[in-house]
Amino acid sequence: METKKAFKVFKYRTQVHWTSGRRGEATAEGRPSLAVSSPPEFQGEPGLWTPEELFLGSLNACTMQTFLAYARQKGLAFSSYACSAEGTLASVERKYRFTEVTLRPVLTVNAEAEIERARQILSDAHRDCFISNSITSKVNLEPELHVGG
Amino acid sequence: METKKAFKVFKYRTQVHWTSGRRGEATAEGRPSLAVSSPPEFQGEPGLWTPEELFLGSLNACTMQTFLAYARQKGLAFSSYACSAEGTLASVERKYRFTEVTLRPVLTVNAEAEIERARQILSDAHRDCFISNSITSKVNLEPELHVGG
Repeated sequence: METKKAFKVFKYRTQVHWTSGRRGEATAEGRPSLAVSSPPEFQGEPGLWTPEELFLGSLNACTMQTFLAYARQKGLAFSSYACSAEGTLASVERKYRFTEVTLRPVLTVNAEAEIERARQILSDAHRDCFISNSITSKVNLEPELHVGG
Repeated sequence: METKKAFKVFKYRTQVHWTSGRRGEATAEGRPSLAVSSPPEFQGEPGLWTPEELFLGSLNACTMQTFLAYARQKGLAFSSYACSAEGTLASVERKYRFTEVTLRPVLTVNAEAEIERARQILSDAHRDCFISNSITSKVNLEPELHVGG
C-alpha cells in the first residue's frame, strides 16, 4: 500500500538587477549575491555565471539533493558523489532552447553489494527531480558507480 | 524582408559535488563556486542557494540579458533595470514542478516617449529568452515602467 503524501504549494523568489554593460547581479534573500552575464559567444563578459550555467546548475543540484534525500531515507552509505551536467543549446523552429542535458553522476558506495541499490536510488532521484520535471529538455542519466572506503 | 540568421549549436557545462550532510557545491569553469542545499522545508541547510532559486535566477537573468542585448540593438536608453521572479512549486499528477513563474521587471527609461518602445523590447526579450523556451512553467511578465534621469 502506498503511503499517502500531502502535497503543498511552495513559493520561491529571486531578484536580478542590471549593474553595467552586459552584466547584472542575481540575489535571493539571505544568499550570497552572484554576478551574472551572458556567455562570451552572446556578447557577455567572461568569468561570470550565465543563465545557461545556472539552468544546468539548478538541474544538477536538484538531482543531487534528491539523491541525498533518498539515500538517507534508504540508509545507503556512500563516500562521494560528483556529477557533471552537459547541456545542448540549439535552435528549434528558429528559437534557441536547451534540447538535451546529460547528467553523469559518479558515486562511490561502501560495498559492492550496494551497487544495484545505489543505481536504483540514482534513477529514482533522476525521475523525481523537481527541476527535471519543469523543463522540456531530454535529460539523460549516465551513472558511474565505484566501491571505495 | 526578414534577415537570415545562422543558428549554431552550443554546449554548456556545470559540475556539482557533495560536501557534507544535505549540502554540496556547484562549479563551472572559471566561475566562483557556489554552496548549494535544499530549501529548509525539504530538509536543506538554510542560507544557501537552492536548485529552486537557481532555476528562477536562471530564467530571471536570461530575460534581463536578452533585454540588455535588444535594448543595445535598438538604441534604447535606460538608467535602471531590476526584476523579481516568483515561482510556484506545486504538485501535478503527484510530482512537484514549477507550474508558474511571474517576472516583474521595473525599468526606468530616459524619456516618456520611450515607454511604449521599452515595453515592446521587454515583451520581445520575454518571448525570446532561451530559458523561458526550455521550461514547462507558464511565465507571466508584469512590467512596471518609469521615466527618470
